[in-house]
Amino acid sequence: MQAELIFTGTELLLGEILNTHAQYLGRRLLALGIEVILHTTVGDNWDRLAQVLRQSLQRADLIIITGGLGPTSDDLTKETVAGVLGLPMVVDEPTLRSLEEYAARRRVTVTEGVAKQACFPAGARILPNPVGTAPGALLEHQGKVLVLLPGPPGELKAMFEEAVVPYLSSLVGRGPVIYSRGIKVTGLGEVGVQQLIGDLEGEQASIAYLARPGEVHVRVSARAAGA
Amino acid sequence: MQAELIFTGTELLLGEILNTHAQYLGRRLLALGIEVILHTTVGDNWDRLAQVLRQSLQRADLIIITGGLGPTSDDLTKETVAGVLGLPMVVDEPTLRSLEEYAARRRVTVTEGVAKQACFPAGARILPNPVGTAPGALLEHQGKVLVLLPGPPGELKAMFEEAVVPYLSSLVGRGPVIYSRGIKVTGLGEVGVQQLIGDLEGEQASIAYLARPGEVHVRVSARAAGA
Repeated sequence: MQAELIFTGTELLLGEILNTHAQYLGRRLLALGIEVILHTTVGDNWDRLAQVLRQSLQRADLIIITGGLGPTSDDLTKETVAGVLGLPMVVDEPTLRSLEEYAARRRVTVTEGVAKQACFPAGARILPNPVGTAPGALLEHQGKVLVLLPGPPGELKAMFEEAVVPYLSSLVGRGPVIYSRGIKVTGLGEVGVQQLIGDLEGEQASIAYLARPGEVHVRVSARAAGA
Repeated sequence: MQAELIFTGTELLLGEILNTHAQYLGRRLLALGIEVILHTTVGDNWDRLAQVLRQSLQRADLIIITGGLGPTSDDLTKETVAGVLGLPMVVDEPTLRSLEEYAARRRVTVTEGVAKQACFPAGARILPNPVGTAPGALLEHQGKVLVLLPGPPGELKAMFEEAVVPYLSSLVGRGPVIYSRGIKVTGLGEVGVQQLIGDLEGEQASIAYLARPGEVHVRVSARAAGA
């Protein structure tokens, strides 16, 4: 199973925040045996997100999109996904009721923006947000899986661990998985290491070399049939 | 001037390392008045990098590619750029001599891999590496600018500050620049802030809202004619 990650948020392009989602999701998906083939980061821009999503749908089986689920007008992810997939947006009544209860406790009214958080592309499975108000969503569409996660790291991690990991674990038996092992070498440069082990490289295994001060990190990856 | 950043390295997809280039380059380009519109991260994979580069060339004026300039077989950036642009690879003699001198001081021979670091797409301006062996490159091609920087952060930053910033500073007068200001708000949620200032949004200005625990970060961005 091959995955692509799409990170939304103009703040990522401006360098206001560090993208820690990339590393967190990369590690967690690797542990699940899912190969990440591409990351894309786009701003809060409907056209560009739609273009990126269309390209990802042609390459990957699983697409995880982070950010853009909140109540303001720059939160466009669900609407863009629905547009690209040709799905209507529908209100999820349990989510709307829980947002109304949350607003009532804070003695504020439910605005149009808040209500937007209860709208999802038709057919989506709603992923509860254990630590925030914006729920996530999971969609199976024409053989592809799309997972929509909130941008704040605490919310993203809680939702991924509680709802997405169990779901993906049940999926990965479907296709080939990838195994990867890293070793650190000192006393040789990148070229010296490649002269020793480069002939392991072939159709089934790939080797990557990463030069670091005083050492070389080597990673050997191979595919195998799913368990 | 609009820019795209392409980060190469399978280690980024596996989550082995955190992508700090994204934030560093985003901040520095913003300070130069250059708008970053997209990031893409690809593994050490010729076909995928070529596909991403072709798409970037259709959207952006400036493309910065990091990583893949080293001596091993998974270092593919210069060769892929040459292939996509239809340029031959040529040896840069001063770079080759300096690599030979470096090897002689360490009493090792110059292997094919090491010599690869002296090969560049024809017409490239060589960017010296003040803190490592792999030089970078700068290409002007059919109205686009491509900048190739090494992956190790210390090398990337030194090369960017010494060679790329002066070059880009001379370019940014050519097109519109973008100005951006951020403010932090407490005591109101995202929706409350949008109700107060949302009508500033229009063709010339865009507003982004970023919810953080206990506060909302608001960023207003606008274009202006270049100085």
